[in-house]
Amino acid sequence: MDFELIKKLIVPAQTKIVLLVLDGLGGLPLVPGGKTELETADTPNLDSLAKRSDLGLSQPAGPGITVGSGPGHQAIFGFDPIKYEIGRGALEVLGVNFPLKPDDVAARGNFCTVDSDGIIIDRRAGRLSTTISQELAELLRSIVIDGVEFFIEPIKEHRFAFVMRGEGLRAGLTGTDPLEVGLADHPVRALNPESEQAARYLNEFVEQARHLLAEKSPANMILLRGFARLPELPQYSEYFGLNPAAIALNGMYRGVSRLVGMTVLEVPENTIRSEFDTLEKHWDEFDYFFIHVKETDTCGADGDFQGKVQVIEAVDRLLPRLLALNPDVVIITGDHSTPAVMKSHSWHPVPLLLFSKYVRPDGFAEFGERVCAHGNLGIMKAREVILLALANADRIKKYGA
Amino acid sequence: MDFELIKKLIVPAQTKIVLLVLDGLGGLPLVPGGKTELETADTPNLDSLAKRSDLGLSQPAGPGITVGSGPGHQAIFGFDPIKYEIGRGALEVLGVNFPLKPDDVAARGNFCTVDSDGIIIDRRAGRLSTTISQELAELLRSIVIDGVEFFIEPIKEHRFAFVMRGEGLRAGLTGTDPLEVGLADHPVRALNPESEQAARYLNEFVEQARHLLAEKSPANMILLRGFARLPELPQYSEYFGLNPAAIALNGMYRGVSRLVGMTVLEVPENTIRSEFDTLEKHWDEFDYFFIHVKETDTCGADGDFQGKVQVIEAVDRLLPRLLALNPDVVIITGDHSTPAVMKSHSWHPVPLLLFSKYVRPDGFAEFGERVCAHGNLGIMKAREVILLALANADRIKKYGA
Repeated sequence: MDFELIKKLIVPAQTKIVLLVLDGLGGLPLVPGGKTELETADTPNLDSLAKRSDLGLSQPAGPGITVGSGPGHQAIFGFDPIKYEIGRGALEVLGVNFPLKPDDVAARGNFCTVDSDGIIIDRRAGRLSTTISQELAELLRSIVIDGVEFFIEPIKEHRFAFVMRGEGLRAGLTGTDPLEVGLADHPVRALNPESEQAARYLNEFVEQARHLLAEKSPANMILLRGFARLPELPQYSEYFGLNPAAIALNGMYRGVSRLVGMTVLEVPENTIRSEFDTLEKHWDEFDYFFIHVKETDTCGADGDFQGKVQVIEAVDRLLPRLLALNPDVVIITGDHSTPAVMKSHSWHPVPLLLFSKYVRPDGFAEFGERVCAHGNLGIMKAREVILLALANADRIKKYGA
Repeated sequence: MDFELIKKLIVPAQTKIVLLVLDGLGGLPLVPGGKTELETADTPNLDSLAKRSDLGLSQPAGPGITVGSGPGHQAIFGFDPIKYEIGRGALEVLGVNFPLKPDDVAARGNFCTVDSDGIIIDRRAGRLSTTISQELAELLRSIVIDGVEFFIEPIKEHRFAFVMRGEGLRAGLTGTDPLEVGLADHPVRALNPESEQAARYLNEFVEQARHLLAEKSPANMILLRGFARLPELPQYSEYFGLNPAAIALNGMYRGVSRLVGMTVLEVPENTIRSEFDTLEKHWDEFDYFFIHVKETDTCGADGDFQGKVQVIEAVDRLLPRLLALNPDVVIITGDHSTPAVMKSHSWHPVPLLLFSKYVRPDGFAEFGERVCAHGNLGIMKAREVILLALANADRIKKYGA
């Protein structure tokens, strides 16, 4: 997508767009010849909407490429996830809902166990309890180095998110984690001259951490890897003229939404119903809403076919509340497929539904993988879906005369 | 498209290709669940041909992007309309059928009214009569500046096409039109050093025009905007080995055809029938014919659903005359969609039919948007259609051994 071109073609409108993402929506039959999770689910509302919509399949990053949820969301938000790579460190930090700034250097942190010679004997420090991890994080927060600030956010067990904040820091850096036991941790090395200052700060931090934790057990050292800064993503308001809001429960999705300039709304309860409450409550304040449903992916990754079916059915029951708001454009899709039978993300293109007053429905009264494969949208790049949404919302003017 | 590669693969043949473009062909139903213009039209000949053809949808510039007729034709001729942008000035001049040369700097001109201080009080000079406009154009033609030539071609009312011809002129130039009343006209500014000479010539022209028109009323000044040179498009003869002809009634389509090296044939009468007469008359002289039907777009833009249906039916009745010539390849499509219900161009992909002896028809005996969406060509980039045409005409040899 040529963002500069799109920016020139965008025109203001009073229309509203809703993007409903069922994480890991695409699936597979449990047995050859069977139905997928979506095809199995009893979804009268989705089916009725499908009959009045354009259908197709969306492909996050091309044939055969399986994406994580970060890249999957980047794609469905309109950004090539290969070009705008979000480094592991940045994703980890976004996942704890930390307000990462463009100049911050983020990393994935582990507490680990080293012997008296500094040789790593357990990279995960026996998966120490999150409580202990929090105490150790507090200790690390006492490290002070002139010129930079550090943030340590425990995640779970031995894992923590790490952020270094300062002026002009670059993240062309190698990690300290040798990724196997029997070796000492590596010093951070700069991969380019611009990153040398960051490497010095980090090595000083690591040495101070080594001393601070030396007497602790089992976690007496840290490992840092996946150093990354945020990619600078074109902002929705600037490039698409939208005032966008995100409704998501999990940190990483909230983080990626914030990255493209969405206002991340507070959701009172940890339920899909509460997400739809939030949509209704804020309907008048924004013109684009991203709603994220996590459980489809969770069930898929757990191999829980029936659970995934039930989550889809639960969303189907809530759909009339969304439609009652009279959105001009509704997109329903996933960020990638997570077939329960695979217990993992997969490369399969994802069912895609587009509703607006400008559609040419095929008359298929079903929302499912096989029907979508015959839909008139064909197999689309996920990152081009936003263009269709904007066009159907009367927000893109003609190119040329 | 890698034109240099295609050029190497082109082989001569005695085959003939016809590209029949119904401008703005794609449509939408008047009411949800209804039929589009093309689906409504009674088209026994198109339907019969569809049954023996490959069907699909063509996309001028990607999902969600609506194109003007200029870019739409560039695309269906094989050229990326974003990469080979035709500036507004050049399009305007092509529109009056002026033989624009590659080095010419073209612009859109307006006669306007200024007060005694040179402040614009009417950007259109009261939409003065075309007759007066022609007299004023004649006056401007008397301006002589050493090193350059000027061409002024009245279009309608206050509008005229402007061309400056000289050696090595560049068009990185700002217009003189402030686009609102209450301001004086701007001087032309060069956006790069290469365009400075052109800016000097133009500012001198504008000053001379100011003096020449000073005593006239209501049009006593000119405004120039959209300075552009022609994009240099790869030529059909050189790259595709074709000897191509264009049959079109309107200036802009004739201009864009000329841009890719087509011979633009004279059409005696302003009717579709006369265009088909012209095709028959020149059948033996060329091996590629582009035939342009404008009225489908005109009716669509007017919101005249039934009128568009009737134009399609009129073309259908003429189709047997085309087929009687035994063309080797027939492509029938549009340059973009113009749904009557939208009264404007739209982004919807356009029905596409490809007939040759090498097709694998699906057996759909209908030419319509929904049927084409299920056709075996899928959703194609419009600019790749020429490759299919050439291949089906035995004009592209094998790549590699």
